Amino acid sequence: MNRIITIGREFGSGGREIGRRLAEKLGYAYYDNEIITEISKKTELSEKYVQSVIERKPLISYPIHIGGTFYTLPSVQLEQSTMIYKEQCNILKEMADRSDCIVVGRCGDHILRDYSPTRIFVYADMASKIQRCRLKGGEDEKLSDNELKKKITSVDKHRAEYYNFYTGKKWGDKSNYDLCINTTDKDVKDIVERLAKFVL
Amino acid sequence: MNRIITIGREFGSGGREIGRRLAEKLGYAYYDNEIITEISKKTELSEKYVQSVIERKPLISYPIHIGGTFYTLPSVQLEQSTMIYKEQCNILKEMADRSDCIVVGRCGDHILRDYSPTRIFVYADMASKIQRCRLKGGEDEKLSDNELKKKITSVDKHRAEYYNFYTGKKWGDKSNYDLCINTTDKDVKDIVERLAKFVL
Repeated sequence: MNRIITIGREFGSGGREIGRRLAEKLGYAYYDNEIITEISKKTELSEKYVQSVIERKPLISYPIHIGGTFYTLPSVQLEQSTMIYKEQCNILKEMADRSDCIVVGRCGDHILRDYSPTRIFVYADMASKIQRCRLKGGEDEKLSDNELKKKITSVDKHRAEYYNFYTGKKWGDKSNYDLCINTTDKDVKDIVERLAKFVL
Repeated sequence: MNRIITIGREFGSGGREIGRRLAEKLGYAYYDNEIITEISKKTELSEKYVQSVIERKPLISYPIHIGGTFYTLPSVQLEQSTMIYKEQCNILKEMADRSDCIVVGRCGDHILRDYSPTRIFVYADMASKIQRCRLKGGEDEKLSDNELKKKITSVDKHRAEYYNFYTGKKWGDKSNYDLCINTTDKDVKDIVERLAKFVL
């Protein structure tokens, strides 16, 4: 069986960078946005739409009460979210069958559980995540500390809701992972060197 | 500054064995029951008594209301617990000043925070902890699964209360550690080999 590493991560913790660098170091395939592209191809939905739906808990259609009778409103969004999740499951399994690989996010630890993956979760304190977001540059560079904190909290809230919804487990709860790594005040490159020795 | 590793652990997770084996492997001093012996020597309290007080949250004396006036009952137990904790702090710091070392339990991660320790927390699922307790033999061998589960839950409850009381932080919460390791279905010797490479 191929060797699979899944990485869950808090936004700004450096988890994605750890995944990419670790894959390079170990010579494993690395899947992150590639998964969006594949889903987009298979479902014929735009990458932008897939991106907007993925890692968000779908809106559930609740029964409503009109004139003594319950009606359930159909939810196109729920159906599409479920279809995208199913496609994601197929794609991740195809990738895991193909070669050793590292999967970042996407409920990888749960979807690939039959492949006995090494399940890693990467986290850090808020100050460290704010600093890391700012150093990465781009859009985040212009935000105030408070704005960045709101963004980080919001992204992680969506990740948690998505993960909890589809897996029935709690995102970030250490019992769901083999190894949890705190990157507060740590150098990501150094962590990757150490991690490569740990997982081999 | 000496290199310090602190290990917090759930009862039955193999954390103590990991600490001992890792210390052997790295050539670090290893402190666990040695701390009890030292406290006993310095306070002239019996090792058995120190053992019974340590890792238990002290009973707080609450003010009581008699005839319109508040009285605070003196608590010998609280005073002794506090004295033992202070002695423990001194001893841990002396040990950390002496050489590279590994400290298991005893709020080591908090007491030695100025020594920049590598703070590890070891955990496992209940089935795995029950199995590990049984394999260790001794008293636990004779207990039923249910009795072992109760014992594990009770020991960890006391550890959590003690840690939370003295540190103001939450025992087992991953934010307080650099690395959390799940030993469920894992071989402790193998984990030590990997960990030794990670921390060096």
